[in-house]
Amino acid sequence: MKIDAVDFFYLTMPCVTDDVDGSQDALLVRVTAGGQIGWGECEAAPLPSIAAFVCPMSHGACRPVSASVLGQNLDTPEDIRRISAQVAYDSMDLLQAPHTYSGIEMALWDALGRAHDEPVWSLLGYDQSKAKVPYASLLFGDTPQETLERAKKAHSKGYSAFKFGWGPIGRGTVGNDADQFLAAREGIGADALLMVDAGQIFGDDVEAASARLPALELANTLWFEEPFQAGALEAYASLSERGSSVQTAGGEAAHNAHMAEHLMKYGKVGFIQIDCGRVGGIGPAKSIAGSAQSQGVTYVNHTFTSHLALSASLQPYAGLSDHTICEFPASPSKLAVALTTNHLQRDADGMVKAPEAAGLGVEVELARLAPYLVQTEIVVDGKVLYQTPELQ
Amino acid sequence: MKIDAVDFFYLTMPCVTDDVDGSQDALLVRVTAGGQIGWGECEAAPLPSIAAFVCPMSHGACRPVSASVLGQNLDTPEDIRRISAQVAYDSMDLLQAPHTYSGIEMALWDALGRAHDEPVWSLLGYDQSKAKVPYASLLFGDTPQETLERAKKAHSKGYSAFKFGWGPIGRGTVGNDADQFLAAREGIGADALLMVDAGQIFGDDVEAASARLPALELANTLWFEEPFQAGALEAYASLSERGSSVQTAGGEAAHNAHMAEHLMKYGKVGFIQIDCGRVGGIGPAKSIAGSAQSQGVTYVNHTFTSHLALSASLQPYAGLSDHTICEFPASPSKLAVALTTNHLQRDADGMVKAPEAAGLGVEVELARLAPYLVQTEIVVDGKVLYQTPELQ
Repeated sequence: MKIDAVDFFYLTMPCVTDDVDGSQDALLVRVTAGGQIGWGECEAAPLPSIAAFVCPMSHGACRPVSASVLGQNLDTPEDIRRISAQVAYDSMDLLQAPHTYSGIEMALWDALGRAHDEPVWSLLGYDQSKAKVPYASLLFGDTPQETLERAKKAHSKGYSAFKFGWGPIGRGTVGNDADQFLAAREGIGADALLMVDAGQIFGDDVEAASARLPALELANTLWFEEPFQAGALEAYASLSERGSSVQTAGGEAAHNAHMAEHLMKYGKVGFIQIDCGRVGGIGPAKSIAGSAQSQGVTYVNHTFTSHLALSASLQPYAGLSDHTICEFPASPSKLAVALTTNHLQRDADGMVKAPEAAGLGVEVELARLAPYLVQTEIVVDGKVLYQTPELQ
Repeated sequence: MKIDAVDFFYLTMPCVTDDVDGSQDALLVRVTAGGQIGWGECEAAPLPSIAAFVCPMSHGACRPVSASVLGQNLDTPEDIRRISAQVAYDSMDLLQAPHTYSGIEMALWDALGRAHDEPVWSLLGYDQSKAKVPYASLLFGDTPQETLERAKKAHSKGYSAFKFGWGPIGRGTVGNDADQFLAAREGIGADALLMVDAGQIFGDDVEAASARLPALELANTLWFEEPFQAGALEAYASLSERGSSVQTAGGEAAHNAHMAEHLMKYGKVGFIQIDCGRVGGIGPAKSIAGSAQSQGVTYVNHTFTSHLALSASLQPYAGLSDHTICEFPASPSKLAVALTTNHLQRDADGMVKAPEAAGLGVEVELARLAPYLVQTEIVVDGKVLYQTPELQ
């Protein structure tokens, strides 16, 4: 089948705050190929991502993403790899391109899976979709008391693993942070898994980050996520070499497989966290998962938005038995909930897995997204390059 | 002074071809601060770069670049570093942000230099601007004969160093490429410096790239540029370890200092090539130049567009005696020529250097850019987020 159309739907909550809650807006992608439809989601700023699809060509190595996608054949996984390689080469000087293309690539897998009546994880070569432990992903409160309450509330919902991130961490004293870590642990109980996300707050300051390790150890924390800027590989390695029981985690910023590989190889992270909506889609994520497995690094998805993104993010490691932790959006925005008509449910044991249904196994009903649709128009030299499509 | 306004001017040639000639369009940036004006140029796709400045906030770590720039104080170089850090943190999830910000950062240095009546290289701590050997940067012809003619023509213009790139290299046989390299050498004569740019054509295929080394050695080539994808550090290292007299070069894709550092440290390139219009501006480029110097790597600018970009790209290593090669746009588009009213001239010895005048030392006259101006409008939910400014 031939890729006939790629449509972008820019969606947003009525009020976007400066909380680091990535589910406040969304860029939904629909691919139409030979009568088949596939859905994907970019984890990216919507407007620049749309612009990267429709912009005029600047030169031969700075073409819009559309130039490498529209009109291509889509019959096998190899077609997706070929299209991905063409985007990487022909849009090499268009920085936003991997974020734009990530949602498209997901949608290509979804369309292909639906056409073959096969789940994406099967197209990727896995013989089954294995259950994962979902962890509730939450933001720290402004005070330890607020964190304690959030932790208790989340714990009451039956999760057995929790991650707290951002908020005041790294902005005050080591003691303040310790109080936060211990409040989170207190709220979730002694047996639950606890992870902490520092949101790059320490830049490349290894001493500042390592000063937090004793309290993280005391709170029995599994990983310390993104203490540093995404590219600060040496800082990651230095912190890892402190030999703490708390391993480092990172990778969500990777916008190609190389970046994730280097975070493992040179940054020595214990957990590699990949967002399929940024890294170039499901294909590169699958290759990173394989590489992690061979290096003894644990692969984890990075997902803070919808269950479309969640299903896509589970596919790359669906069949890996030793990689069992899954980030699960525990308090998504109404928009993120509305984005799909069905949702990945936790089973009786509290576990989740990538759907058995064809493609990504989640359905989108455009009509219900009307309250969130952002009317957008981009006009260049009198030509309308982008206009929000009808919700149909 | 306070940053009052940042204006973007999207300019293009009437006809843009798929040649890898980055001077076919341009994104000019004007910063206005306390009555002072500064100019910069993004080496980036104009439309997505504008979108990254004006887009609505997605969440606290995905804010438009404008949010970190407008209204900030600009009185010292430290102010620029502070603004750069804020952009990096608050736009961490907006991939296009470094390309957008690079042109702004140049313009901040230009405005600051003009306000202090001091060239940017002096603000950077250099006590003089040293002469560099400009190399003519050209594209290979479709045939060796065409390359030979281009080489002879360029040689007749008095250059003593030349780089040929892209075109058919890596797309045919090893023998075809050898003919191209030798044609270039024949055209420029035995004494001139010859560099070759493969434009990432070999992906991460070390054997394919190394098969070109004997002919490159025969043509007495100084460096072999971007044989691989920007992130393929292991491939770069493997090729470097072949011990050829031809060293590897790369770095133009770096959109932060970390990427350049890793290309030196892990990719073991002999030459690090930085585009100030992509790497985040002049500040990070200066830090990379210092790091290169301490590691025995040669710093080179990457510039294929206007003399505004050229002046900016010379500043970070203006005072370094041992880093004497300079990429010089040898056949820029009419747009790139028109972008500045004055141009960096080669002196009697054929050398160039960063201007002695205040700021970046090049002037822009908007009225002469009218033929190239692209009328652009971005409207989101009825609000005009961007409209091409008047040329005044």
